[in-house]
Amino acid sequence: MLEARKRPIGVFDSGLGGLTVVKELTRVLPHEDIIYFGDTARVPYGTRSAEIIRSFSEENTRFLLQKRVKAVVIACNTSSAVAAVHLKNKFKNIPIFEVIEPASIEATEKGKKIGVIGTYTTIGSLAYNKSIKKHLKNAEVFGSPCPLFVPFIEEGETKGKSLKIMAEKYLKGLKKQKIDTLILGCTHYPIIKDVIEAVMGKGVTLINPGKSVTGEIYKFLKENDLLNNQKRNGDIKFFVTDLTERFTKVAEMFLGKGIRKQLEKVEL
Amino acid sequence: MLEARKRPIGVFDSGLGGLTVVKELTRVLPHEDIIYFGDTARVPYGTRSAEIIRSFSEENTRFLLQKRVKAVVIACNTSSAVAAVHLKNKFKNIPIFEVIEPASIEATEKGKKIGVIGTYTTIGSLAYNKSIKKHLKNAEVFGSPCPLFVPFIEEGETKGKSLKIMAEKYLKGLKKQKIDTLILGCTHYPIIKDVIEAVMGKGVTLINPGKSVTGEIYKFLKENDLLNNQKRNGDIKFFVTDLTERFTKVAEMFLGKGIRKQLEKVEL
Repeated sequence: MLEARKRPIGVFDSGLGGLTVVKELTRVLPHEDIIYFGDTARVPYGTRSAEIIRSFSEENTRFLLQKRVKAVVIACNTSSAVAAVHLKNKFKNIPIFEVIEPASIEATEKGKKIGVIGTYTTIGSLAYNKSIKKHLKNAEVFGSPCPLFVPFIEEGETKGKSLKIMAEKYLKGLKKQKIDTLILGCTHYPIIKDVIEAVMGKGVTLINPGKSVTGEIYKFLKENDLLNNQKRNGDIKFFVTDLTERFTKVAEMFLGKGIRKQLEKVEL
Repeated sequence: MLEARKRPIGVFDSGLGGLTVVKELTRVLPHEDIIYFGDTARVPYGTRSAEIIRSFSEENTRFLLQKRVKAVVIACNTSSAVAAVHLKNKFKNIPIFEVIEPASIEATEKGKKIGVIGTYTTIGSLAYNKSIKKHLKNAEVFGSPCPLFVPFIEEGETKGKSLKIMAEKYLKGLKKQKIDTLILGCTHYPIIKDVIEAVMGKGVTLINPGKSVTGEIYKFLKENDLLNNQKRNGDIKFFVTDLTERFTKVAEMFLGKGIRKQLEKVEL
Protein backbone atom coordinates (compact mmCIF):
# COMPACT_ATOMS: atom_id res chain seq x y z
CA MET A 1 0.00 0.00 0.00
CA LEU A 2 1.15 3.49 -0.80
CA GLU A 3 2.71 5.28 2.14
CA ALA A 4 0.32 8.05 3.29
CA ARG A 5 2.65 10.93 2.47
CA LYS A 6 3.10 9.62 -1.10
CA ARG A 7 -0.61 9.79 -1.80
CA PRO A 8 -1.99 12.58 -3.97
CA ILE A 9 -4.01 15.57 -2.80
CA GLY A 10 -7.55 15.45 -4.20
CA VAL A 11 -9.13 18.68 -5.45
CA PHE A 12 -12.66 19.10 -6.78
CA ASP A 13 -14.65 21.91 -8.29
CA SER A 14 -17.91 22.32 -10.20
CA GLY A 15 -15.85 22.95 -13.30
CA LEU A 16 -12.60 24.66 -14.10
CA GLY A 17 -12.41 27.55 -11.61
CA GLY A 18 -10.72 25.26 -9.10
CA LEU A 19 -7.67 25.22 -11.34
CA THR A 20 -6.71 28.60 -9.88
CA VAL A 21 -6.42 26.75 -6.57
CA VAL A 22 -4.32 24.02 -8.20
CA LYS A 23 -2.04 26.77 -9.52
CA GLU A 24 -1.46 27.98 -5.94
CA LEU A 25 -0.97 24.43 -4.64
CA THR A 26 1.69 23.63 -7.24
CA ARG A 27 3.47 26.89 -6.46
CA VAL A 28 3.64 26.28 -2.69
CA LEU A 29 3.73 22.47 -2.70
CA PRO A 30 5.55 21.57 -5.94
CA HIS A 31 6.37 18.00 -4.87
CA GLU A 32 2.79 16.94 -4.23
CA ASP A 33 0.89 14.77 -6.70
CA ILE A 34 -2.58 16.15 -7.39
CA ILE A 35 -5.83 14.58 -8.62
CA TYR A 36 -8.20 17.23 -9.95
CA PHE A 37 -11.87 16.48 -10.49
CA GLY A 38 -14.02 19.02 -12.41
CA ASP A 39 -17.73 18.31 -12.72
CA THR A 40 -17.93 19.94 -16.15
CA ALA A 41 -21.08 17.98 -17.12
CA ARG A 42 -23.01 19.78 -14.37
CA VAL A 43 -21.20 23.14 -14.12
CA PRO A 44 -22.18 25.78 -12.97
CA TYR A 45 -23.17 25.09 -9.36
CA GLY A 46 -23.61 28.75 -8.37
CA THR A 47 -27.22 29.10 -9.49
CA ARG A 48 -28.36 25.71 -8.19
CA SER A 49 -30.05 24.85 -4.91
CA ALA A 50 -28.06 23.92 -1.79
CA GLU A 51 -29.65 20.47 -1.75
CA ILE A 52 -28.45 19.52 -5.22
CA ILE A 53 -24.98 20.99 -4.64
CA ARG A 54 -24.59 18.79 -1.54
CA SER A 55 -25.55 15.72 -3.54
CA PHE A 56 -23.14 16.58 -6.41
CA SER A 57 -20.33 17.40 -3.95
CA GLU A 58 -20.75 14.05 -2.21
CA GLU A 59 -20.37 12.21 -5.53
CA ASN A 60 -17.26 14.25 -6.34
CA THR A 61 -15.71 13.42 -2.98
CA ARG A 62 -16.39 9.70 -3.45
CA PHE A 63 -14.59 9.84 -6.78
CA LEU A 64 -11.49 11.35 -5.13
CA LEU A 65 -11.59 8.81 -2.28
CA GLN A 66 -11.47 5.98 -4.83
CA LYS A 67 -8.22 7.53 -6.02
CA ARG A 68 -6.82 7.10 -2.49
CA VAL A 69 -6.07 10.76 -1.85
CA LYS A 70 -4.60 11.88 1.48
CA ALA A 71 -6.78 15.00 1.68
CA VAL A 72 -9.74 16.53 -0.16
CA VAL A 73 -9.80 20.20 -1.15
CA ILE A 74 -13.16 21.78 -2.03
CA ALA A 75 -11.82 24.26 -4.59
CA CYS A 76 -15.22 25.85 -5.08
CA ASN A 77 -16.71 28.59 -2.91
CA THR A 78 -20.27 27.52 -3.66
CA SER A 79 -19.66 23.92 -2.52
CA SER A 80 -17.63 25.20 0.44
CA ALA A 81 -20.52 27.46 1.45
CA VAL A 82 -23.30 24.89 1.37
CA ALA A 83 -21.72 21.41 1.35
CA ALA A 84 -18.55 21.51 3.51
CA VAL A 85 -20.27 20.64 6.81
CA HIS A 86 -22.21 17.85 5.11
CA LEU A 87 -19.03 16.38 3.58
CA LYS A 88 -17.08 16.60 6.84
CA ASN A 89 -19.87 14.73 8.66
CA LYS A 90 -20.16 12.14 5.93
CA PHE A 91 -16.46 11.43 5.42
CA LYS A 92 -14.82 11.52 8.84
CA ASN A 93 -11.70 9.54 7.91
CA ILE A 94 -10.21 12.05 5.49
CA PRO A 95 -9.17 15.66 6.11
CA ILE A 96 -11.41 17.97 4.08
CA PHE A 97 -10.38 21.55 3.35
CA GLU A 98 -12.76 24.27 2.23
CA VAL A 99 -11.92 27.80 1.16
CA ILE A 100 -14.23 30.01 3.24
CA GLU A 101 -12.74 29.80 6.73
CA PRO A 102 -9.09 30.34 5.70
CA ALA A 103 -10.09 33.28 3.46
CA SER A 104 -12.19 34.77 6.29
CA ILE A 105 -9.27 34.52 8.71
CA GLU A 106 -6.94 36.21 6.25
CA ALA A 107 -9.49 38.95 5.57
CA THR A 108 -9.94 39.74 9.27
CA GLU A 109 -6.18 40.03 9.64
CA LYS A 110 -6.18 42.72 6.96
CA GLY A 111 -9.37 44.73 7.39
CA LYS A 112 -12.64 45.45 9.17
CA LYS A 113 -15.04 46.48 6.42
CA ILE A 114 -15.01 43.37 4.32
CA GLY A 115 -16.71 42.88 0.97
CA VAL A 116 -17.43 39.44 -0.48
CA ILE A 117 -18.24 38.73 -4.12
CA GLY A 118 -19.37 35.33 -5.40
CA THR A 119 -22.23 33.33 -6.89
CA TYR A 120 -25.86 33.71 -5.80
CA THR A 121 -25.61 30.56 -3.72
CA THR A 122 -22.38 31.57 -1.97
CA ILE A 123 -23.60 35.08 -1.13
CA GLY A 124 -27.12 33.92 -0.24
CA SER A 125 -25.75 31.29 2.18
CA LEU A 126 -24.13 34.05 4.32
CA ALA A 127 -21.31 31.53 4.95
CA TYR A 128 -18.65 34.25 4.70
CA ASN A 129 -20.56 36.60 7.00
CA LYS A 130 -20.77 33.93 9.71
CA SER A 131 -17.16 32.88 9.35
CA ILE A 132 -15.79 36.44 9.35
CA LYS A 133 -17.80 37.44 12.43
CA LYS A 134 -16.60 34.33 14.24
CA HIS A 135 -13.04 35.61 13.87
CA LEU A 136 -13.68 39.35 14.21
CA LYS A 137 -16.86 40.21 16.09
CA ASN A 138 -17.05 43.86 15.09
CA ALA A 139 -16.28 43.29 11.43
CA GLU A 140 -18.76 44.67 8.92
CA VAL A 141 -19.49 42.35 5.99
CA PHE A 142 -21.07 43.30 2.65
CA GLY A 143 -21.93 40.65 0.07
CA SER A 144 -22.62 41.13 -3.62
CA PRO A 145 -23.39 38.36 -6.12
CA CYS A 146 -21.69 38.77 -9.50
CA PRO A 147 -23.45 36.08 -11.54
CA LEU A 148 -22.14 37.02 -14.98
CA PHE A 149 -18.45 36.97 -14.02
CA VAL A 150 -18.19 33.17 -14.39
CA PRO A 151 -19.67 33.06 -17.92
CA PHE A 152 -17.49 36.04 -18.97
CA ILE A 153 -14.37 34.29 -17.69
CA GLU A 154 -15.25 30.91 -19.18
CA GLU A 155 -15.70 32.71 -22.53
CA GLY A 156 -12.24 34.23 -22.23
CA GLU A 157 -13.92 37.68 -22.18
CA THR A 158 -11.57 38.89 -19.47
CA LYS A 159 -10.57 42.33 -20.72
CA GLY A 160 -13.32 43.97 -22.79
CA LYS A 161 -15.59 46.91 -22.13
CA SER A 162 -18.67 44.75 -21.67
CA LEU A 163 -17.10 43.07 -18.61
CA LYS A 164 -15.89 46.43 -17.28
CA ILE A 165 -19.45 47.84 -17.38
CA MET A 166 -20.81 44.76 -15.62
CA ALA A 167 -18.05 44.93 -12.98
CA GLU A 168 -18.90 48.57 -12.28
CA LYS A 169 -22.54 47.62 -11.84
CA TYR A 170 -21.80 44.70 -9.52
CA LEU A 171 -19.20 46.51 -7.38
CA LYS A 172 -20.99 49.87 -7.08
CA GLY A 173 -22.60 49.04 -3.74
CA LEU A 174 -19.33 47.80 -2.22
CA LYS A 175 -17.49 50.97 -3.28
CA LYS A 176 -20.24 53.05 -1.70
CA GLN A 177 -19.73 51.18 1.59
CA LYS A 178 -16.01 52.08 1.45
CA ILE A 179 -14.82 48.53 2.15
CA ASP A 180 -11.12 48.05 2.92
CA THR A 181 -10.87 44.37 1.98
CA LEU A 182 -12.52 42.32 -0.77
CA ILE A 183 -12.73 38.54 -0.82
CA LEU A 184 -12.77 37.06 -4.34
CA GLY A 185 -15.32 34.47 -3.22
CA CYS A 186 -15.34 32.36 -6.37
CA THR A 187 -12.34 30.44 -7.66
CA HIS A 188 -12.84 31.93 -11.15
CA TYR A 189 -12.35 35.51 -10.05
CA PRO A 190 -8.55 35.63 -9.67
CA ILE A 191 -8.52 35.49 -13.52
CA ILE A 192 -10.13 38.98 -13.67
CA LYS A 193 -8.33 40.35 -10.62
CA ASP A 194 -7.01 43.31 -12.66
CA VAL A 195 -10.49 44.39 -13.76
CA ILE A 196 -11.83 44.16 -10.20
CA GLU A 197 -8.82 46.04 -8.84
CA ALA A 198 -9.24 48.80 -11.43
CA VAL A 199 -12.91 49.28 -10.52
CA MET A 200 -12.34 49.16 -6.74
CA GLY A 201 -9.31 51.46 -6.84
CA LYS A 202 -6.13 51.29 -4.75
CA GLY A 203 -6.45 50.89 -1.01
CA VAL A 204 -8.71 47.83 -1.14
CA THR A 205 -6.89 44.58 -0.32
CA LEU A 206 -8.02 41.63 -2.45
CA ILE A 207 -8.11 38.18 -0.85
CA ASN A 208 -7.73 35.06 -3.02
CA PRO A 209 -9.22 32.13 -1.06
CA GLY A 210 -7.19 29.68 -3.14
CA LYS A 211 -4.04 31.20 -1.64
CA SER A 212 -5.51 31.19 1.86
CA VAL A 213 -6.45 27.50 1.77
CA THR A 214 -3.09 26.56 0.29
CA GLY A 215 -1.39 28.04 3.36
CA GLU A 216 -3.66 25.98 5.61
CA ILE A 217 -2.97 22.77 3.66
CA TYR A 218 0.77 23.31 3.79
CA LYS A 219 0.62 23.75 7.55
CA PHE A 220 -1.53 20.64 8.01
CA LEU A 221 0.69 18.40 5.88
CA LYS A 222 3.85 19.62 7.61
CA GLU A 223 2.46 19.20 11.14
CA ASN A 224 1.20 15.70 10.37
CA ASP A 225 4.35 14.61 8.59
CA LEU A 226 2.39 14.16 5.38
CA LEU A 227 4.47 16.31 3.01
CA ASN A 228 5.51 14.32 -0.03
CA ASN A 229 9.29 13.99 0.16
CA GLN A 230 9.84 12.86 -3.43
CA LYS A 231 12.59 14.77 -5.21
CA ARG A 232 10.82 15.33 -8.55
CA ASN A 233 7.90 17.71 -9.18
CA GLY A 234 4.50 16.18 -8.52
CA ASP A 235 2.19 14.76 -11.21
CA ILE A 236 -1.21 16.27 -11.83
CA LYS A 237 -4.09 14.32 -13.34
CA PHE A 238 -7.29 16.03 -14.43
CA PHE A 239 -10.60 14.19 -14.52
CA VAL A 240 -13.72 15.84 -15.93
CA THR A 241 -17.30 14.64 -16.43
CA ASP A 242 -17.57 16.28 -19.85
CA LEU A 243 -14.84 17.20 -22.28
CA THR A 244 -14.90 19.59 -25.21
CA GLU A 245 -12.13 21.41 -27.07
CA ARG A 246 -13.33 24.63 -25.46
CA PHE A 247 -12.99 23.18 -21.93
CA THR A 248 -9.41 22.20 -22.70
CA LYS A 249 -8.57 25.72 -23.85
CA VAL A 250 -10.23 27.34 -20.86
CA ALA A 251 -8.45 24.94 -18.51
CA GLU A 252 -5.12 25.89 -20.02
CA MET A 253 -5.94 29.58 -19.58
CA PHE A 254 -6.70 28.95 -15.89
CA LEU A 255 -3.61 26.95 -15.21
CA GLY A 256 -1.27 28.87 -17.47
CA LYS A 257 0.06 25.71 -19.13
CA GLY A 258 -0.85 22.79 -21.39
CA ILE A 259 -2.77 19.88 -19.85
CA ARG A 260 -4.09 17.97 -22.87
CA LYS A 261 -2.12 14.82 -22.07
CA GLN A 262 -3.19 14.56 -18.43
CA LEU A 263 -6.89 15.12 -19.13
CA GLU A 264 -9.39 12.27 -18.89
CA LYS A 265 -13.18 12.10 -19.12
CA VAL A 266 -14.95 9.93 -16.56
CA GLU A 267 -18.52 9.00 -15.66
CA LEU A 268 -19.70 9.25 -12.09
CA MET B 1 -57.36 5.13 -21.01
CA LEU B 2 -57.20 8.73 -22.05
CA GLU B 3 -58.32 9.32 -25.62
CA ALA B 4 -55.25 10.21 -27.73
CA ARG B 5 -56.41 13.72 -28.56
CA LYS B 6 -56.96 14.49 -24.86
CA ARG B 7 -53.36 13.72 -24.00
CA PRO B 8 -50.94 16.57 -23.32
CA ILE B 9 -48.15 17.77 -25.59
CA GLY B 10 -44.73 17.15 -23.99
CA VAL B 11 -42.07 19.84 -24.29
CA PHE B 12 -38.52 19.63 -23.02
CA ASP B 13 -35.56 21.98 -22.85
CA SER B 14 -32.21 22.12 -21.09
CA GLY B 15 -33.67 24.79 -18.85
CA LEU B 16 -36.06 27.66 -19.26
CA GLY B 17 -35.48 28.88 -22.83
CA GLY B 18 -38.07 26.39 -24.09
CA LEU B 19 -40.74 28.45 -22.37
CA THR B 20 -40.64 30.84 -25.35
CA VAL B 21 -41.82 27.84 -27.39
CA VAL B 22 -44.56 27.12 -24.85
CA LYS B 23 -45.66 30.73 -25.20
CA GLU B 24 -46.13 30.21 -28.96
CA LEU B 25 -47.86 26.86 -28.44
CA THR B 26 -50.42 28.33 -26.03
CA ARG B 27 -51.05 31.22 -28.42
CA VAL B 28 -51.74 28.99 -31.44
CA LEU B 29 -53.11 25.92 -29.61
CA PRO B 30 -54.83 27.34 -26.52
CA HIS B 31 -56.89 24.20 -25.83
CA GLU B 32 -53.95 21.84 -25.57
CA ASP B 33 -52.66 20.62 -22.21
CA ILE B 34 -48.89 20.90 -21.95
CA ILE B 35 -46.27 19.12 -19.85
CA TYR B 36 -43.03 21.12 -19.74
CA PHE B 37 -39.81 19.53 -18.58
CA GLY B 38 -36.77 21.79 -17.92
CA ASP B 39 -33.50 20.10 -16.99
CA THR B 40 -32.45 22.99 -14.74
CA ALA B 41 -30.09 20.80 -12.69
CA ARG B 42 -27.90 20.33 -15.77
CA VAL B 43 -28.49 23.54 -17.75
CA PRO B 44 -26.79 24.81 -19.92
CA TYR B 45 -26.41 22.21 -22.67
CA GLY B 46 -24.87 24.58 -25.24
CA THR B 47 -21.27 24.19 -24.10
CA ARG B 48 -21.45 20.43 -23.53
CA SER B 49 -20.44 17.59 -25.85
CA ALA B 50 -22.89 16.03 -28.32
CA GLU B 51 -22.55 12.68 -26.57
CA ILE B 52 -23.69 13.95 -23.19
CA ILE B 53 -26.51 16.03 -24.69
CA ARG B 54 -27.87 12.90 -26.40
CA SER B 55 -27.84 11.03 -23.11
CA PHE B 56 -29.55 13.90 -21.21
CA SER B 57 -32.14 14.33 -24.00
CA GLU B 58 -33.00 10.65 -23.91
CA GLU B 59 -33.69 10.86 -20.17
CA ASN B 60 -35.86 13.95 -20.68
CA THR B 61 -37.89 12.19 -23.37
CA ARG B 62 -38.44 9.16 -21.14
CA PHE B 63 -39.80 11.45 -18.45
CA LEU B 64 -42.35 12.92 -20.88
CA LEU B 65 -43.35 9.48 -22.16
CA GLN B 66 -44.19 8.44 -18.60
CA LYS B 67 -46.60 11.36 -18.57
CA ARG B 68 -48.39 9.78 -21.59
CA VAL B 69 -47.92 12.72 -23.95
CA LYS B 70 -49.21 12.54 -27.53
CA ALA B 71 -46.14 14.25 -29.00
CA VAL B 72 -42.68 15.36 -27.85
CA VAL B 73 -41.30 18.81 -28.72
CA ILE B 74 -37.55 19.38 -28.42
CA ALA B 75 -37.76 23.06 -27.45
CA CYS B 76 -34.00 23.46 -27.49
CA ASN B 77 -31.87 24.16 -30.55
CA THR B 78 -28.82 22.45 -29.06
CA SER B 79 -30.70 19.19 -28.41
CA SER B 80 -32.43 19.49 -31.78
CA ALA B 81 -29.05 19.89 -33.49
CA VAL B 82 -27.28 16.92 -31.95
CA ALA B 83 -29.94 14.63 -30.44
CA ALA B 84 -33.08 14.73 -32.65
CA VAL B 85 -32.03 11.87 -34.98
CA HIS B 86 -30.99 9.78 -31.98
CA LEU B 87 -34.34 10.36 -30.24
CA LYS B 88 -36.38 9.63 -33.37
CA ASN B 89 -34.54 6.32 -33.82
CA LYS B 90 -34.89 5.42 -30.17
CA PHE B 91 -38.56 6.32 -29.71
CA LYS B 92 -40.38 5.30 -32.89
CA ASN B 93 -43.87 5.18 -31.42
CA ILE B 94 -44.22 8.87 -30.62
CA PRO B 95 -44.05 11.86 -32.96
CA ILE B 96 -41.00 13.96 -32.09
CA PHE B 97 -40.70 17.58 -33.24
CA GLU B 98 -37.46 19.50 -33.36
CA VAL B 99 -36.97 23.18 -34.16
CA ILE B 100 -34.26 23.21 -36.83
CA GLU B 101 -36.04 21.89 -39.92
CA PRO B 102 -39.19 24.04 -39.60
CA ALA B 103 -37.07 27.17 -38.94
CA SER B 104 -34.85 26.34 -41.93
CA ILE B 105 -37.89 25.95 -44.21
CA GLU B 106 -39.30 29.27 -43.05
CA ALA B 107 -35.92 30.98 -43.54
CA THR B 108 -35.56 29.70 -47.11
CA GLU B 109 -39.02 31.03 -47.92
CA LYS B 110 -37.90 34.49 -46.83
CA GLY B 111 -34.27 34.87 -47.89
CA LYS B 112 -31.12 33.51 -49.50
CA LYS B 113 -28.29 34.86 -47.37
CA ILE B 114 -29.16 33.33 -44.06
CA GLY B 115 -27.42 33.94 -40.74
CA VAL B 116 -27.78 31.60 -37.78
CA ILE B 117 -26.93 32.47 -34.17
CA GLY B 118 -26.91 29.93 -31.34
CA THR B 119 -24.78 28.06 -28.84
CA TYR B 120 -21.35 26.64 -29.67
CA THR B 121 -22.81 23.16 -30.00
CA THR B 122 -25.65 24.23 -32.30
CA ILE B 123 -23.42 26.29 -34.60
CA GLY B 124 -20.58 23.75 -34.50
CA SER B 125 -22.95 20.92 -35.50
CA LEU B 126 -23.74 22.68 -38.82
CA ALA B 127 -27.28 21.28 -38.44
CA TYR B 128 -28.84 24.51 -39.73
CA ASN B 129 -26.45 24.67 -42.71
CA LYS B 130 -27.39 21.15 -43.78
CA SER B 131 -31.10 21.67 -43.28
CA ILE B 132 -31.18 25.02 -45.10
CA LYS B 133 -29.23 23.70 -48.10
CA LYS B 134 -31.56 20.72 -48.31
CA HIS B 135 -34.43 23.13 -48.89
CA LEU B 136 -32.62 25.79 -50.94
CA LYS B 137 -29.51 24.53 -52.67
CA ASN B 138 -28.02 27.92 -53.55
CA ALA B 139 -28.62 29.47 -50.12
CA GLU B 140 -25.60 30.94 -48.36
CA VAL B 141 -25.45 30.20 -44.63
CA PHE B 142 -23.35 32.03 -42.03
CA GLY B 143 -23.21 30.80 -38.44
CA SER B 144 -22.09 32.72 -35.38
CA PRO B 145 -22.07 31.39 -31.80
CA CYS B 146 -23.23 33.91 -29.17
CA PRO B 147 -22.30 32.08 -25.96
CA LEU B 148 -22.92 34.93 -23.51
CA PHE B 149 -26.48 35.67 -24.65
CA VAL B 150 -27.96 32.85 -22.55
CA PRO B 151 -26.31 33.93 -19.27
CA PHE B 152 -27.25 37.58 -19.95
CA ILE B 153 -30.89 36.61 -20.53
CA GLU B 154 -31.06 34.26 -17.54
CA GLU B 155 -29.76 37.16 -15.42
CA GLY B 156 -32.51 39.42 -16.71
CA GLU B 157 -29.78 41.64 -18.24
CA THR B 158 -31.81 42.12 -21.41
CA LYS B 159 -31.47 45.85 -22.02
CA GLY B 160 -28.18 47.26 -20.76
CA LYS B 161 -25.11 48.57 -22.52
CA SER B 162 -22.98 45.57 -21.63
CA LEU B 163 -25.29 43.27 -23.65
CA LYS B 164 -25.40 45.77 -26.52
CA ILE B 165 -21.59 45.77 -26.79
CA MET B 166 -21.50 41.98 -26.75
CA ALA B 167 -24.27 41.79 -29.38
CA GLU B 168 -22.31 44.12 -31.65
CA LYS B 169 -19.26 41.93 -31.25
CA TYR B 170 -21.13 38.69 -31.97
CA LEU B 171 -23.15 40.02 -34.95
CA LYS B 172 -20.38 42.02 -36.65
CA GLY B 173 -19.43 39.19 -39.03
CA LEU B 174 -23.05 38.58 -40.07
CA LYS B 175 -23.61 42.27 -40.80
CA LYS B 176 -20.47 42.28 -42.95
CA GLN B 177 -21.89 39.36 -44.97
CA LYS B 178 -25.05 41.42 -45.59
CA ILE B 179 -27.42 38.61 -44.63
CA ASP B 180 -31.13 39.10 -45.40
CA THR B 181 -32.51 36.64 -42.84
CA LEU B 182 -31.39 35.72 -39.32
CA ILE B 183 -32.46 32.59 -37.46
CA LEU B 184 -32.61 33.04 -33.67
CA GLY B 185 -31.19 29.54 -33.20
CA CYS B 186 -31.59 29.33 -29.44
CA THR B 187 -34.94 29.38 -27.66
CA HIS B 188 -33.67 32.09 -25.27
CA TYR B 189 -33.02 34.64 -27.99
CA PRO B 190 -36.59 35.84 -28.69
CA ILE B 191 -36.33 37.57 -25.28
CA ILE B 192 -33.63 39.93 -26.65
CA LYS B 193 -35.12 40.22 -30.14
CA ASP B 194 -35.19 44.03 -29.88
CA VAL B 195 -31.46 44.26 -29.10
CA ILE B 196 -30.60 41.93 -32.00
CA GLU B 197 -32.91 43.84 -34.35
CA ALA B 198 -31.36 47.16 -33.35
CA VAL B 199 -27.84 45.89 -34.05
CA MET B 200 -28.73 44.18 -37.36
CA GLY B 201 -30.80 47.11 -38.63
CA LYS B 202 -34.02 47.06 -40.66
CA GLY B 203 -34.20 44.83 -43.71
CA VAL B 204 -33.09 41.65 -41.94
CA THR B 205 -35.96 39.23 -41.28
CA LEU B 206 -35.70 37.47 -37.91
CA ILE B 207 -36.91 33.86 -37.67
CA ASN B 208 -38.13 32.47 -34.33
CA PRO B 209 -37.88 28.65 -34.53
CA GLY B 210 -40.43 28.35 -31.70
CA LYS B 211 -43.01 29.91 -34.03
CA SER B 212 -41.92 27.75 -36.96
CA VAL B 213 -42.25 24.48 -35.04
CA THR B 214 -45.61 25.54 -33.59
CA GLY B 215 -46.97 25.85 -37.14
CA GLU B 216 -45.72 22.36 -37.93
CA ILE B 217 -47.27 20.89 -34.76
CA TYR B 218 -50.61 22.53 -35.46
CA LYS B 219 -50.65 21.05 -38.95
CA PHE B 220 -49.71 17.58 -37.69
CA LEU B 221 -52.37 17.52 -34.95
CA LYS B 222 -55.05 18.73 -37.32
CA GLU B 223 -54.21 16.26 -40.08
CA ASN B 224 -54.15 13.36 -37.63
CA ASP B 225 -57.31 14.38 -35.83
CA LEU B 226 -55.34 14.88 -32.63
CA LEU B 227 -56.35 18.44 -31.76
CA ASN B 228 -57.74 18.62 -28.24
CA ASN B 229 -61.42 19.54 -28.59
CA GLN B 230 -61.99 20.52 -24.97
CA LYS B 231 -63.76 23.85 -24.55
CA ARG B 232 -61.62 25.27 -21.74
CA ASN B 233 -58.05 26.53 -22.05
CA GLY B 234 -55.43 23.82 -21.61
CA ASP B 235 -53.50 23.18 -18.38
CA ILE B 236 -49.75 23.57 -18.25
CA LYS B 237 -47.57 21.74 -15.76
CA PHE B 238 -43.90 22.58 -15.32
CA PHE B 239 -41.40 20.01 -14.09
CA VAL B 240 -37.80 20.97 -13.37
CA THR B 241 -34.82 19.04 -12.04
CA ASP B 242 -33.71 21.91 -9.79
CA LEU B 243 -35.74 24.71 -8.33
CA THR B 244 -34.62 28.04 -6.90
CA GLU B 245 -36.44 31.31 -6.37
CA ARG B 246 -34.39 32.77 -9.21
CA PHE B 247 -35.52 30.04 -11.64
CA THR B 248 -39.13 30.80 -10.83
CA LYS B 249 -38.63 34.50 -11.55
CA VAL B 250 -36.79 33.84 -14.81
CA ALA B 251 -39.48 31.36 -15.88
CA GLU B 252 -42.16 33.99 -15.29
CA MET B 253 -40.18 36.51 -17.36
CA PHE B 254 -40.01 33.98 -20.23
CA LEU B 255 -43.65 33.08 -20.15
CA GLY B 256 -44.99 36.48 -19.28
CA LYS B 257 -47.16 35.14 -16.44
CA GLY B 258 -47.08 33.53 -13.00
CA ILE B 259 -46.37 29.80 -12.79
CA ARG B 260 -45.50 29.23 -9.13
CA LYS B 261 -48.49 26.95 -8.51
CA GLN B 262 -47.89 24.66 -11.48
CA LEU B 263 -44.15 24.20 -10.81
CA GLU B 264 -42.80 20.93 -9.46
CA LYS B 265 -39.29 19.64 -8.83
CA VAL B 266 -38.57 16.06 -9.90
CA GLU B 267 -35.62 13.68 -9.94
CA LEU B 268 -34.74 11.77 -13.08
